[in-house]
Amino acid sequence: MLTEKPVNTFLDELASSAPAPGGGSAAALAGAIGAALVSMVANLTVGKKDYVQVQDDIQRLLGQSEALRHKCQELLEADVAAYSEVSRVGKMPRDTDEQKAVRSAAMQQALKNATAVPMQLAEVCVEILKLCPEATAKGNVRAVSDVGVAALMAEAGLRAAALNVLINLGSIKDEAFVGQERLRLHALLAGKSELKEHILKEVVAKL
Amino acid sequence: MLTEKPVNTFLDELASSAPAPGGGSAAALAGAIGAALVSMVANLTVGKKDYVQVQDDIQRLLGQSEALRHKCQELLEADVAAYSEVSRVGKMPRDTDEQKAVRSAAMQQALKNATAVPMQLAEVCVEILKLCPEATAKGNVRAVSDVGVAALMAEAGLRAAALNVLINLGSIKDEAFVGQERLRLHALLAGKSELKEHILKEVVAKL
Repeated sequence: MLTEKPVNTFLDELASSAPAPGGGSAAALAGAIGAALVSMVANLTVGKKDYVQVQDDIQRLLGQSEALRHKCQELLEADVAAYSEVSRVGKMPRDTDEQKAVRSAAMQQALKNATAVPMQLAEVCVEILKLCPEATAKGNVRAVSDVGVAALMAEAGLRAAALNVLINLGSIKDEAFVGQERLRLHALLAGKSELKEHILKEVVAKL
Repeated sequence: MLTEKPVNTFLDELASSAPAPGGGSAAALAGAIGAALVSMVANLTVGKKDYVQVQDDIQRLLGQSEALRHKCQELLEADVAAYSEVSRVGKMPRDTDEQKAVRSAAMQQALKNATAVPMQLAEVCVEILKLCPEATAKGNVRAVSDVGVAALMAEAGLRAAALNVLINLGSIKDEAFVGQERLRLHALLAGKSELKEHILKEVVAKL
């Protein structure tokens, strides 16, 4: 598993020409870093007497951020698997018309599957970003800059996931599918850059 | 060393209430991911016959992105060391006036050192971002979405580093130092969000 490798090795493999990990895994890791930082701020607030009135909210926030972090870590692995399948199909024989037809159908299915992973990641990154206003308002103020970093990572992860959705959609011939996924992506992106900037303003005001 | 730990362990420690790794390490990792993706695109362009005319430029780009990636990995470790020093000084005795004075002077020095690390990281992230237009123009077009992810990570790393500079400056009493570092940070941030959006437009046009 890619996430069981040392950080240095992960970065070496990311920098190499090997087909995976690539931008999809990088996007998932950005989301995981964002969620982990929300968890850190929650963990720095749990049991602190100055924050006794928000303990229930912080515990719920921590449960949410940890679930989203683990989802990002799963999607990091899923992205590698989906991309490997696209590479495998790309190597199928195409000497006869029948082989070409079989390969083309398999590639279309592999690309649809490879689109589903960054789309799910985009959804997860939106959820992580949406935890940040509450983390800024209720979390330990000494760690408020970390909420800002979390928001930056979640929004970068969202937009990176969107690029990975778009590059796959460019090779998918099913126009109805492409149109529907573009609309879904558009809705996920709408207002999120502004939300990130709003969170950063609130964070800077508390620094 | 933190970067020798598995990715999963790094994320677990980031999510925990342990003082390090925190947002500073996350910012350095974002920069490293960005630089690694520029390297990946360069590596996918090296030796390709469709890109014979840009081989010298791509080799230079690869040298630059790898040097910046390794700098980010060094700064990730340096951030942990600088933060540990701040924590250590924070635990120094303050029972007598003399102890208070010694601790306060040590803390001011530790905070200045802890500010230097994210400031250097901000500079490195700007350099990574500046490699992206050439990587978009000359790199393997099949990996162009990865340049977009690189730009997102480099800009997020820059702004995350800036938050870490700002939170330290808030506790530093040397007003001349604080003023000078704020100006330096302001210059580093100026126009970089716009540059990132420009790169993303060029990337999307090539998808």
